[in-house]
Amino acid sequence: MKYLIFLVSLFFVVPVQSQIPDLMPLPAKYTLKNKDFSINTSFKIEIQGDANERVYKEASRFFQRVAERTGLFFKTWMVDEGSKLSGRGLLIKIKTKGNLALGMDESYSLQIDQAQILLTANNDIGAIRGLATLIQLIGAGQEGYFFKGIAIEDEPRFTWRGLLVSQPYHFMPMDVIKRTIDAMAAVKMNVLHFYISDDQGYRIESKVYPRLHQLASDGMYFSHEQVREMVQYADQRGIRVVPEIDVPGHSTAMIYAYPHLASVARDYALQDHWGVFDPTLDPTKASTYTFLDSLLTEVASLFPDQYFHIGGDENTGKDWQKNQSIRSFMQSNNLKTTLALQNYFNRKVQAILQKSGKITVGWDEVLMKEVAPASAKKYFQDGRYDQLIETNVPKDMVIQSWRGMEALLSSAKNGYKSILSKGFYIDLVQPASYHYLTDPIPFRNDIIIPDSEANFDRFESDIIKKIQQGEKLLSAEEEKLILGGEATMWTEHVSAETFDSRVWPRTAAIAERLWSPAELRNVDDMYRRMDIVSIQLESLGLTHIKNKEMMLRRLMGTNDVTALSNLVQYLEPVQGYKRNRANNFTRFSPYTLMVDIAVPDQKAVRSVTALFANAGVTKEIEKLNQVESLLQQWIVDARKVQLDIDQKPALKDFLVPTIYLEKIAAVGINAIGIYKSGSKLEKFWDEEKEELFKKAVKENGYCELKVVTPLKNFIMSLVRQ
Amino acid sequence: MKYLIFLVSLFFVVPVQSQIPDLMPLPAKYTLKNKDFSINTSFKIEIQGDANERVYKEASRFFQRVAERTGLFFKTWMVDEGSKLSGRGLLIKIKTKGNLALGMDESYSLQIDQAQILLTANNDIGAIRGLATLIQLIGAGQEGYFFKGIAIEDEPRFTWRGLLVSQPYHFMPMDVIKRTIDAMAAVKMNVLHFYISDDQGYRIESKVYPRLHQLASDGMYFSHEQVREMVQYADQRGIRVVPEIDVPGHSTAMIYAYPHLASVARDYALQDHWGVFDPTLDPTKASTYTFLDSLLTEVASLFPDQYFHIGGDENTGKDWQKNQSIRSFMQSNNLKTTLALQNYFNRKVQAILQKSGKITVGWDEVLMKEVAPASAKKYFQDGRYDQLIETNVPKDMVIQSWRGMEALLSSAKNGYKSILSKGFYIDLVQPASYHYLTDPIPFRNDIIIPDSEANFDRFESDIIKKIQQGEKLLSAEEEKLILGGEATMWTEHVSAETFDSRVWPRTAAIAERLWSPAELRNVDDMYRRMDIVSIQLESLGLTHIKNKEMMLRRLMGTNDVTALSNLVQYLEPVQGYKRNRANNFTRFSPYTLMVDIAVPDQKAVRSVTALFANAGVTKEIEKLNQVESLLQQWIVDARKVQLDIDQKPALKDFLVPTIYLEKIAAVGINAIGIYKSGSKLEKFWDEEKEELFKKAVKENGYCELKVVTPLKNFIMSLVRQ
Repeated sequence: MKYLIFLVSLFFVVPVQSQIPDLMPLPAKYTLKNKDFSINTSFKIEIQGDANERVYKEASRFFQRVAERTGLFFKTWMVDEGSKLSGRGLLIKIKTKGNLALGMDESYSLQIDQAQILLTANNDIGAIRGLATLIQLIGAGQEGYFFKGIAIEDEPRFTWRGLLVSQPYHFMPMDVIKRTIDAMAAVKMNVLHFYISDDQGYRIESKVYPRLHQLASDGMYFSHEQVREMVQYADQRGIRVVPEIDVPGHSTAMIYAYPHLASVARDYALQDHWGVFDPTLDPTKASTYTFLDSLLTEVASLFPDQYFHIGGDENTGKDWQKNQSIRSFMQSNNLKTTLALQNYFNRKVQAILQKSGKITVGWDEVLMKEVAPASAKKYFQDGRYDQLIETNVPKDMVIQSWRGMEALLSSAKNGYKSILSKGFYIDLVQPASYHYLTDPIPFRNDIIIPDSEANFDRFESDIIKKIQQGEKLLSAEEEKLILGGEATMWTEHVSAETFDSRVWPRTAAIAERLWSPAELRNVDDMYRRMDIVSIQLESLGLTHIKNKEMMLRRLMGTNDVTALSNLVQYLEPVQGYKRNRANNFTRFSPYTLMVDIAVPDQKAVRSVTALFANAGVTKEIEKLNQVESLLQQWIVDARKVQLDIDQKPALKDFLVPTIYLEKIAAVGINAIGIYKSGSKLEKFWDEEKEELFKKAVKENGYCELKVVTPLKNFIMSLVRQ
Repeated sequence: MKYLIFLVSLFFVVPVQSQIPDLMPLPAKYTLKNKDFSINTSFKIEIQGDANERVYKEASRFFQRVAERTGLFFKTWMVDEGSKLSGRGLLIKIKTKGNLALGMDESYSLQIDQAQILLTANNDIGAIRGLATLIQLIGAGQEGYFFKGIAIEDEPRFTWRGLLVSQPYHFMPMDVIKRTIDAMAAVKMNVLHFYISDDQGYRIESKVYPRLHQLASDGMYFSHEQVREMVQYADQRGIRVVPEIDVPGHSTAMIYAYPHLASVARDYALQDHWGVFDPTLDPTKASTYTFLDSLLTEVASLFPDQYFHIGGDENTGKDWQKNQSIRSFMQSNNLKTTLALQNYFNRKVQAILQKSGKITVGWDEVLMKEVAPASAKKYFQDGRYDQLIETNVPKDMVIQSWRGMEALLSSAKNGYKSILSKGFYIDLVQPASYHYLTDPIPFRNDIIIPDSEANFDRFESDIIKKIQQGEKLLSAEEEKLILGGEATMWTEHVSAETFDSRVWPRTAAIAERLWSPAELRNVDDMYRRMDIVSIQLESLGLTHIKNKEMMLRRLMGTNDVTALSNLVQYLEPVQGYKRNRANNFTRFSPYTLMVDIAVPDQKAVRSVTALFANAGVTKEIEKLNQVESLLQQWIVDARKVQLDIDQKPALKDFLVPTIYLEKIAAVGINAIGIYKSGSKLEKFWDEEKEELFKKAVKENGYCELKVVTPLKNFIMSLVRQ
């Protein structure tokens, strides 16, 4: 728990040069130096100490990546026990073998100067984190490549820095998972939450219940061998893999394969659509637990991590209420609510997993009690947090909070460990800045940002009020119970082709939130560094940049996609659950259209916004000309795309955005013309234009044109000159 | 052998419309229709007959891909036995389950009209070939998407249409292999030649001799489970997998892991470089055969195909000559040459594989005898082909000809089956047109093209002379022994990132050569269709187009790669073995520089060449202006790149090409200016310009600037006005 004590005493060192290095996540402490370590073909790496095989392999990969980036033909390459420094090089000193587990020591120290690079760590995992930092420090100039001179003392603020990948909605094959793991390691994340089972599919082989993968996977699942391959791949990069089998709700796939598990007899099939469904395991039958005993023991044996996620979210309880025998069971066992029955179920599942030595993790609902709103409010006001939760939840259970502050507070106040996911739902395609400013310990008035989306949280506004009034809601001890957070990639609306662009680079901002000091909240600099890291991540095989034009080429059937590519960089998918509400998307519908090609939080939108803002403020002629030629380009591109659409119907979603882009660009050009002629613009902004921009900003084809408002603001600044 | 009879009677139907459909490979016979089958969301697929599971899965993937291309939200998607047509749709009729083996029936018939699509085939493999055709027939227009109306009767000209992937030089992980298989299936190739062992590594797990993968793979190998996964993946797409364990030469990896196999005792290590090395298995020791017996039996059990490749190429024989005991063995067994000793060895290996029911395949050398040049010439002239080969080579052995006509002729004349690889060495980055015009049955005077590169062929010129004199070198029966051909991707100079761009789309031209009628030799139309297929292949996950800018971004560290990207499309890697001769490339050196980013046979070079030629001939002002602005763009891009290089040393290879591109563009602009002014250009082309263009065309950084000569030709056409 050393890291937790460290966390409290943490402070953010502003370096003398007041220059922030191109690192993400930023280290806990660093000082830039004046002299760098130049890299030449004699570069070598030596590892000293009781090192695990992991770090040799990572060091070899590191060597290879440095060669790829710099084009240097190194004289040596594989790093093994025989690798010794004879002169300048990287010396890695390790005390002992690392143990990949919750609370593991990931600290390291890195000293780069002209003569040497010294990376010291207590174990190989810390050393791997240090190598992830070092590769980001490659710099280039006329003289060649170098590692930036710096002194770093680093360790994570939180021990649980996760990414959830849900396999049931759209299956992500091994290559996607492997490159995801590589990217996670690059930004020092350490938990892959591997979500296996849901209403739409069951995604790993089961030897004890083979109908699970045979019937409920459409042939898309990981064999035992592949699960081991993935776990081993993650282990080599210092990443734990925590599996989730979501029970008793979200279990259509399981019930479809084994209908005797159902609470209600009906014709079951995999769900094609997304949402919350009623099928639920019957928690009153012995045969359900026999099944789970064999199944969970089998799954547990595949994942060496001590933690095992049992889901527990979004059980509607309806199927339990429908079944007379379940209702009787609740009565005779004095279980007043379905949440109470679920609590009964959870304890039996926990007992099963305990036999395999596992500690369970669950979503909010596994802890929360059904309490009438008025009573709940009173309990909350009186600080009677114990009344908000179910009794009998084992104290070692970890709560994953997807609904927010109430659960997080109740969990910590009652002594439960927890991890935050609300605010880190990257599938909702919100900007990185939003995720970046979300903090796993939100109970301080300087770091709260309220979240209006998907608010299941009864007391959020009350909590925020209390915090803002200066009330200290959590003690230092209670804060320590918050282990970290997890970005969640629910894969309803992604394919293997678009997965990366929905996860990266935004997840790097979350990685920084979870690793770096809480005080670090400079959004502009986060974006500056994220853009750099984004290119570096691409070298790991990520497709988040390169698949855009590939997808455009598919729809065009030719290489001629420049206009489309220019246009699509201003379009972002609608945020939150807006796309979910349209019920036409399924497991098999195409994810190859405009909304899938557009990516969240576009860099071009940020650049154009900055250009417009700057030109609007300075009104320098050079800037105005820049804006003008940009707008002219919009018109050229829009017209070209309109012609393309005519022959390629799959491009039809682009039509409306091109029409608006063309029209608003014309308004902008017009405004600049008038301004440059020296005339007044006071009557320029009429109702017609207001209406046009209002329409242009609206959602089309599940996308929003993100440059409308920035352009309007620019025009307004001319109008108000 | 039905396909062979078909082959002889084959004729190429020129359709009434004299329009060639966008298919590759082109079918044996087709007739275009006037009406198409329009695709809407009610589209369905039904499969009738005794179908293998393969075709249901392929049909589901087909359905999914049509959705991805058209953006249509189909009402159904998975194709299974319950899928029935109620109205318009695709009906697949299959007689019987296919058996994936040499000589398998791959024929199909496809009828597309307004009301229905009928795909009939004798078995599921034929149906899979038909689906590969059908997906290429998707068309688009204002009215929506359609399958082009056509009637096709199709079957392959050759039964062996392979691609060799060598794993030892650079390891290609599973995702690369899988997408290669998908792409092969898309152009109807049917043999993946999986090359496992060489001097640089041994790439599959061995449970009987685990040091092979533990010591000799750097941790990069396929487990048994992964081999089975690959074989199954290929099987599902109608592709055989033929493994190769190359013995007795090319065996450093094997000897490094098990030194007792060596002919000469020395310190062994994996070879880091490329070339022909001396380490060779000792063919005189019983322990060698004990080892091979266990190993080959294990490997044979992993690959269900009846054919097993034992290599046999490039054994220098030097290590055998060095060993006194081997020399004695040769004497006492009356083995006069090392080829004779290898023949002795081969027969023992064949006996081992026969126990596993395998038929062996080997490179040229397994058949050829060492004969003094004078005698060889005389034998050849007298048609005494039996004197050119070793006796005792089992008659069922298949010869893979990598050295050319002599081997192919000797093989067929002596009754051996053979496959051609010479001319299909795609690793030599030659143009698709060259491969396209190479024919596995080169013994006809209309289809010969001599190949000057890597000519090991003593009689090539004699053979060509005979053919041109009208001599019929092979009887119809002998021609039938030529089973087909194989493209070879030796991976010395590719990484997992560049593999695809070295294989595709050029291999599609070879696929057509091996599938389609011999008479089809229209290079321009091949390129037209190859460019279309190239985009379609990308949807299978291939990175041959998209990795270019990714690699440029890595070297730049930013998104700003347009100028570099424009420039690199005029650069092609040096062809043949020129890059091999530079000895600085190794298993671990970077393959991320200019020569790796440049791709062979660039589309842009072809377009620019056509533009220059057209402008040179017509001298139309519009064309001249087009050339002028293109040349101006060259200058702008070249200057931008020169600035980039200054800060990014890894771009340094680009410097010389940018300097020349800028200079020759200036010459071109100058020439156009003079021409447009109406002045004479007769003295324009002076020695200085001649010298400049001579220098500009030369190799730099293992690349050639392919637009120099086309530009010179254009200028000359102005000069000669």
